[in-house]
Amino acid sequence: MSGKFSVKIIDLHAEDRVIVLSKTDAAKAYLKAFDRVDVRSKGRSATAVLYLSDKLAEEGVARVTRDLAKALTVRDGSGITVSLAPKPRSVRFLKKKVDGGSLTRDEIKAIVSDIVSDHLGPLETLAFAMAEKYVGMSMDETQYLTEALVDTGETLKFDRPTYDKHSTGGVPGNKVSLLIVPMVAAAGLLIPKTSSRAITSASGTADTMEVLANVEFTSSELMEIAKRVGGALVWGGMMNLAPGDDAIIRVEHPVGLDPESQMMSSILAKKMAAGVKNLVLDIPAGVGSKVDTVKEAEALGNRFIELGDRLGIRVECGITYGGQPVGHTVGPALEAREALQALMGTGPSSLVEKAESLAGLILEMGGVVPPGKGHEATEAILAKGRAYKKMQEIVEAQGGNPKIKPEDIPIGDHKHTVYAPSDGFITFVDNRVITAIARAAGAPRDKGAGLIIHVKRGYKVKRGEPILEIFAERSTRLQDALRILQSETPIVIEGMLLKVVPKRKMKILQRGSS
Amino acid sequence: MSGKFSVKIIDLHAEDRVIVLSKTDAAKAYLKAFDRVDVRSKGRSATAVLYLSDKLAEEGVARVTRDLAKALTVRDGSGITVSLAPKPRSVRFLKKKVDGGSLTRDEIKAIVSDIVSDHLGPLETLAFAMAEKYVGMSMDETQYLTEALVDTGETLKFDRPTYDKHSTGGVPGNKVSLLIVPMVAAAGLLIPKTSSRAITSASGTADTMEVLANVEFTSSELMEIAKRVGGALVWGGMMNLAPGDDAIIRVEHPVGLDPESQMMSSILAKKMAAGVKNLVLDIPAGVGSKVDTVKEAEALGNRFIELGDRLGIRVECGITYGGQPVGHTVGPALEAREALQALMGTGPSSLVEKAESLAGLILEMGGVVPPGKGHEATEAILAKGRAYKKMQEIVEAQGGNPKIKPEDIPIGDHKHTVYAPSDGFITFVDNRVITAIARAAGAPRDKGAGLIIHVKRGYKVKRGEPILEIFAERSTRLQDALRILQSETPIVIEGMLLKVVPKRKMKILQRGSS
Repeated sequence: MSGKFSVKIIDLHAEDRVIVLSKTDAAKAYLKAFDRVDVRSKGRSATAVLYLSDKLAEEGVARVTRDLAKALTVRDGSGITVSLAPKPRSVRFLKKKVDGGSLTRDEIKAIVSDIVSDHLGPLETLAFAMAEKYVGMSMDETQYLTEALVDTGETLKFDRPTYDKHSTGGVPGNKVSLLIVPMVAAAGLLIPKTSSRAITSASGTADTMEVLANVEFTSSELMEIAKRVGGALVWGGMMNLAPGDDAIIRVEHPVGLDPESQMMSSILAKKMAAGVKNLVLDIPAGVGSKVDTVKEAEALGNRFIELGDRLGIRVECGITYGGQPVGHTVGPALEAREALQALMGTGPSSLVEKAESLAGLILEMGGVVPPGKGHEATEAILAKGRAYKKMQEIVEAQGGNPKIKPEDIPIGDHKHTVYAPSDGFITFVDNRVITAIARAAGAPRDKGAGLIIHVKRGYKVKRGEPILEIFAERSTRLQDALRILQSETPIVIEGMLLKVVPKRKMKILQRGSS
Repeated sequence: MSGKFSVKIIDLHAEDRVIVLSKTDAAKAYLKAFDRVDVRSKGRSATAVLYLSDKLAEEGVARVTRDLAKALTVRDGSGITVSLAPKPRSVRFLKKKVDGGSLTRDEIKAIVSDIVSDHLGPLETLAFAMAEKYVGMSMDETQYLTEALVDTGETLKFDRPTYDKHSTGGVPGNKVSLLIVPMVAAAGLLIPKTSSRAITSASGTADTMEVLANVEFTSSELMEIAKRVGGALVWGGMMNLAPGDDAIIRVEHPVGLDPESQMMSSILAKKMAAGVKNLVLDIPAGVGSKVDTVKEAEALGNRFIELGDRLGIRVECGITYGGQPVGHTVGPALEAREALQALMGTGPSSLVEKAESLAGLILEMGGVVPPGKGHEATEAILAKGRAYKKMQEIVEAQGGNPKIKPEDIPIGDHKHTVYAPSDGFITFVDNRVITAIARAAGAPRDKGAGLIIHVKRGYKVKRGEPILEIFAERSTRLQDALRILQSETPIVIEGMLLKVVPKRKMKILQRGSS
């Protein structure tokens, strides 16, 4: 069931490694279109997907894509053999999980390793993630999964203890890392933060930081920057940190899947690979973020702490208000502006207090201040301009302009303002709709796209006051964003009856405002 | 977010419709590799996957695959526009199901129609099938799904009532349809049977029939044959019957998924589309088939009957013994031989009795005989040679040789015999292992590959007697089949202690033997 062919490299970028044979050759080797095939050359082997084309491949010739040629170290004219790839052993383990079973360490390792090596394809990978959602994974299994993911890539090592902050996400405008990293570094702890670009949000930390400086660095460049200035804010994508995680997230994304065991493994695998030893985890609770209630957030936090203990990462959790955006801006450039303003002392309190609290927890973890004194310490660091100064050092170390002013950061010049249609109190700012509008306007790809949210929960507005501004770099994108306003309500205003609710309730409404 | 291009057709067979642009053009149109794009030309539109290649596509040119060109009715030099495909509305319904919700008729219709039109890709399709498995589908939802699947293709119409038999499957060697169709047609009922080729089994009804005659016919050819001889045994694959079903099964297959609602919908959608009004459903029960116990088979049968009622198909169920293969042969040619022998009066009783019972139920359904008299009637039809004569007519109508003798049917000339390693009783014949051996030997692609199973449950054997013969058309395939014997046991022999079990138990062991 195999055939021998002469290689010709083809310039075709496909989702999988692809090999193209003529129909006749394929028939002779008992292969059919889209078979997963095993391609071998001198002891090296790789899996590829078979395409058939009589025009692209004459008889006796196998056209192989560049990445496949690289994996096999073959060039034009090399000899290869092609045969039907056997089903990997891990398919059995996958089916066991799908049918409700528990997996051993070795079984999970086999699944993850076959996902990364393409022996399990996107369908099998999605089936695994769906089984995680519905069958669930024990703490043992989640630990094995995390370890297996770390093993798929490289691991960074620093010569002194490293600290980090991560958020479970779901809340728009969450630019707190741009405040936390310089606060912590200014206090003398090492915080070489790697982060991701947005997948479903309007701006990831890396997208926002990229407005101010470069974020694409190799691991040795990151280590050099961290050593020099004590902190960094870079994109983790160039460092091959737990790449198996990306392969799983890629298939989850189209169906909006995010099972808890995978979310926990993904976060801690990336942190382990990045050499993080001490982590403060921000768990926003509230309608529209990952968990709805403080109780759920506590339970999730406890599971993260246990998983961290098993993996050798000290985890502490901060539960924060996640029911509406953090600060007043969403989108890379607008968020970078607001972060810079906050570092310079004029940021909104919802942003500043969240950053101070979380950074304070890190200082306590690192023994820089006694327990309970963290917030106070970071407040002082910010007030004295030490955080801003450290951010300037980081921006400079990452090749940006340390003297940039917030108002110098360009934002999209296509703009639309939404006005309050009636008097009343703001009762709800919808995270989901805010994110959808910002993305439709072009964020995160168009840095200047996004929103300014003028009012938040508990604010009182008069009819005709501006409540929302939408920015886009291109007029078609602004139109796309406005179309969402036709069917969705980003900000809910309730009328005067709210005035009669008792004072205690009013306080709840105001919590998390500004 | 769109660009205009001049078409050049490319000869590339890919899983999806593919369009290839140069990297520069794609960047200008804000498109990236593997984006799902909307391609338009003069009011027609189609979805395709974007590949990037500077060698295959010069600037301003879009290389499109032949099937995409056909869908758009464009040729070399035609103008097209390419833009990012919007997420279809049905993604929301899909997520609702994934999150545990119930779907309306319109929502299910939207999902199925987007699967067929490629607006939902393989990942979304698998997520839907997984949600069916874990979240479950109500009878309402299963009905809507079946109706939606029927609507994806054509529907055959016959001018008199049609009858059919279907098996839920899982039991190797189940060639009963080759006996039932001629028995029922000989009794004067119309039975234009469409069936599938094997997906996971060693031989589907269409694969086995193909040994004796052609099975590839269009719907008008099938109608003509059925009108002329009253019965047919053809492959349904050329008639565009409920093609949405195939799109779902295709993604289920790699992970061995088969949720009950999808199984029921698949079966009844194909039958509705094929114009079947009366169906006898064979539900084999036993370890290794779809349901383990008679109780589960009854429950499944009742759900099929209810679903049939809702869809206008009268369904009756026959629960049969599915714990071991039917008859003594597995694989297309060997099964065709055995079916022909049975029609000529020398078949094994497990095969003949199963066929007579199920065909008898159909005669009772059709009012040809009073209730309870079906088996007797089909026994007589077989004994008088009327079924064999009708089969000869069908084979001739389908372009085969009606005079072929069982021993004239060629089987693979690479052969291996397995001998009993000890004296004892046969306690288990493993369906799963039997199928795996037959497929490894080359079935169903190699018609002559398969097995003869000499002994079945309850048989007494002496050490050294032949218990199994494996046939292959190619020696490498025989080796593949033999490798399975190294780790798996197709036939279990238990020693003399079985002699002391009480008589009642012995009877259970013997049930379903021969």
